[in-house]
Amino acid sequence: MTMANTEVTRLFSEFLVASRYEEIPDAVRHEAKRALLNWLGCAIGSSRHETITAMFGALSPFVGAPQATLLGRPERVDILHAALINGVSSHVLDFDDTHARAVHPSAPVMPAILAYGEWQKISGAALIHAFVLGVDAECRIGLSVFPEHYDRGWHITGTAGVFGAAAAMGKLLGLDAQRMAWALGIAATQSSGLREMFGTMCKSFHPGRAAQSGLSAALLAEKNFTSSLRAIEAPRGFAHVLSTKFDPSTITDGLGQRYELSLNMYKPYACGLVVHAAIDGCIQLKREHALTADMIAAVHVKTSPLVPELTAIRKPQTGLEGKFSIFHACAVALAVGAAGEPQFADAVVRNPQIAALRDRVAITADAGIRKLEAYVTVTLKDGRTLEKHVPHALGTVERPMSDADLEEKFRSLTADMLPPAQSDRIIGLVWQLDTLADVGEIARATVTP
Amino acid sequence: MTMANTEVTRLFSEFLVASRYEEIPDAVRHEAKRALLNWLGCAIGSSRHETITAMFGALSPFVGAPQATLLGRPERVDILHAALINGVSSHVLDFDDTHARAVHPSAPVMPAILAYGEWQKISGAALIHAFVLGVDAECRIGLSVFPEHYDRGWHITGTAGVFGAAAAMGKLLGLDAQRMAWALGIAATQSSGLREMFGTMCKSFHPGRAAQSGLSAALLAEKNFTSSLRAIEAPRGFAHVLSTKFDPSTITDGLGQRYELSLNMYKPYACGLVVHAAIDGCIQLKREHALTADMIAAVHVKTSPLVPELTAIRKPQTGLEGKFSIFHACAVALAVGAAGEPQFADAVVRNPQIAALRDRVAITADAGIRKLEAYVTVTLKDGRTLEKHVPHALGTVERPMSDADLEEKFRSLTADMLPPAQSDRIIGLVWQLDTLADVGEIARATVTP
Repeated sequence: MTMANTEVTRLFSEFLVASRYEEIPDAVRHEAKRALLNWLGCAIGSSRHETITAMFGALSPFVGAPQATLLGRPERVDILHAALINGVSSHVLDFDDTHARAVHPSAPVMPAILAYGEWQKISGAALIHAFVLGVDAECRIGLSVFPEHYDRGWHITGTAGVFGAAAAMGKLLGLDAQRMAWALGIAATQSSGLREMFGTMCKSFHPGRAAQSGLSAALLAEKNFTSSLRAIEAPRGFAHVLSTKFDPSTITDGLGQRYELSLNMYKPYACGLVVHAAIDGCIQLKREHALTADMIAAVHVKTSPLVPELTAIRKPQTGLEGKFSIFHACAVALAVGAAGEPQFADAVVRNPQIAALRDRVAITADAGIRKLEAYVTVTLKDGRTLEKHVPHALGTVERPMSDADLEEKFRSLTADMLPPAQSDRIIGLVWQLDTLADVGEIARATVTP
Repeated sequence: MTMANTEVTRLFSEFLVASRYEEIPDAVRHEAKRALLNWLGCAIGSSRHETITAMFGALSPFVGAPQATLLGRPERVDILHAALINGVSSHVLDFDDTHARAVHPSAPVMPAILAYGEWQKISGAALIHAFVLGVDAECRIGLSVFPEHYDRGWHITGTAGVFGAAAAMGKLLGLDAQRMAWALGIAATQSSGLREMFGTMCKSFHPGRAAQSGLSAALLAEKNFTSSLRAIEAPRGFAHVLSTKFDPSTITDGLGQRYELSLNMYKPYACGLVVHAAIDGCIQLKREHALTADMIAAVHVKTSPLVPELTAIRKPQTGLEGKFSIFHACAVALAVGAAGEPQFADAVVRNPQIAALRDRVAITADAGIRKLEAYVTVTLKDGRTLEKHVPHALGTVERPMSDADLEEKFRSLTADMLPPAQSDRIIGLVWQLDTLADVGEIARATVTP
């Protein structure tokens, strides 16, 4: 056994405790701002969703003092409930960020540290630092048991996310190495979330629960609530009980030299990543050639075999089915030039013009094409043939969304919730995050009447 | 695949919904009272323990309205925190009840239903009914994946207990079958608790978290927070993700004909079950022959091989080590005639007279002896040899503690916390439980200044 194998919880705790804000590279700090903006848009955008209504309806009799904002809503609640409910709203639209290899990084971490930060008036720099470390924790620990852990049926955003929240909160609370290890242990023993829940409200419950459980883990450890010091690597610890694979070097290699947040991706389109390259190609062709639906005779898309496997609904009838239809996604992208939440509304999916174009979309699977790659060919009624190869979809690490793209996505997600001036103010605050004295300013800026 | 295999969550939910109080046999109802008394003693007895102090210190800034009592303390908190904290105090002393085959039944279920019951002034009969069904849920679901689930490293009192709390609360809330299945699903996706935590405060955290998670699962389901309807049996559901064994017939066989609560056991002695038969033999010999420590030349105990495997600490130095020393346990039982919490205090373990007698205890393992069986031989200085065979330790299903034994245990556990009259009043209320209009009376009767 290597050192890391027998002591990885201790080694990782010591790294978290020793880390200094000055060591975080500028690009990584900037990525934290981008992640915050993207996350805020997702959480505000679903703040009135039936999932949140159901949850708040069930839990409101039990909330404590008004310490933190429910994003995009008028209510203030105790930080444990804020972490939970804002964690759920993060993921309801499935539009939040994705690490290049696994885990939705922001949803389990941001809700915990922003709630605590609002309550205790922490600085933007402290939030950035805690967030970067929390993302490192959840991604490294998650990847150490991946993919066997996920294949077994665990929703890794929940199971690994709880470590992210605990590590980030442990840093904000200034825990020493022993208490940091306890915090990771209390997190480990709450690690949960089944993939069977996909397609139900429980899917977005997972990052919410992870945020709340990780937050309470760090708060308990601070007050000397004891736990194992070997919770990750012990024979009856997280890795061996929840996976058949464990590679502790994933947790310790290059600590402080590279940060997992550098590999963060943002979705430009409101559906599964696997459809993004095809949408991307359609939008590019529409823009370059000023296409309208009635100009188009046929569309042919060549993709990875995963695409028809996951998104082959030929005649979707609801917005949710539309998200699993490569045919609708391409049609709406060509007709409207966008594929945000509004383009997956029930009414849009049933729109006869969109449906007619959808029926003219054909797809071919090619095992030589990568998951986030596509070839789009559009044949026009005037006889012309237009082609677009998308080697990397917009939003990937190879072709990231620009800051302006993220601003546009934020405005689109919040358009029904906030006046434009309020959205602009939030965007401005996020870009100033590193100099902000009190992150509560951001949370309070999202309040709606 | 059998029906149960593919539909066990639905079948079990329908059973819970259809169950009527009148169907619960008298003996099972009485067992619920016995479980309540035993549980109250454990929870009150550890209400000032450092585990509870640490937890309440960490969480008190976040509690909501004063809806429910923290047993044995002056504070009142929201029901979610009451379920959590009373769930932890249930198990701190490891003195709570044990199902004959697995799971500590009361610790994850009672805290949830008593907190809710106090808040909503529910009747004692409703509490009994919900408790009986909750125990059925956690034991049946736990046993369906046992022992492979436990062997893998899961603390089954946490992982299965959450189903018990959800089922019991679903019954109290009057959920229909769909919402009951959702409640079980929301419970399943929070199922957690690692055996690595044994020996730390996190062990008793598990039933507390289970009580709180199960309570919130039922509250969420009531408000239409959706979940899988096949959370137990689905390929990515509880059983297959958290175990390599799944026997769904354990969940459905004899439903409503036999109740798992009938197999409940209570510990007369404040240490692991495995030592109980030996203690039992020592106490019987002491009583029958009026033994004192200085009369004894040597003690020889024959036990199952499990006993030296788990409790072979030859020279314990702390109370906790004393609980893992068959030598101390027999010595204190012969010297004092008891083996409650006081007999495992640090000072008692270090007492020179007890230590001297301890050094005269010898043990032989015999594979032909069952886990809760023992042969005790005491050789006296006057040359006599006394023998006692204990085929079943006191507290087993075969030789249950009497109601009077349970009262005595309750008084012993609460002696340092409550005036005797207050303990007597609680005992009286428990035996009247079935006719009590408001179970809150019991919770409030435990309050200390």
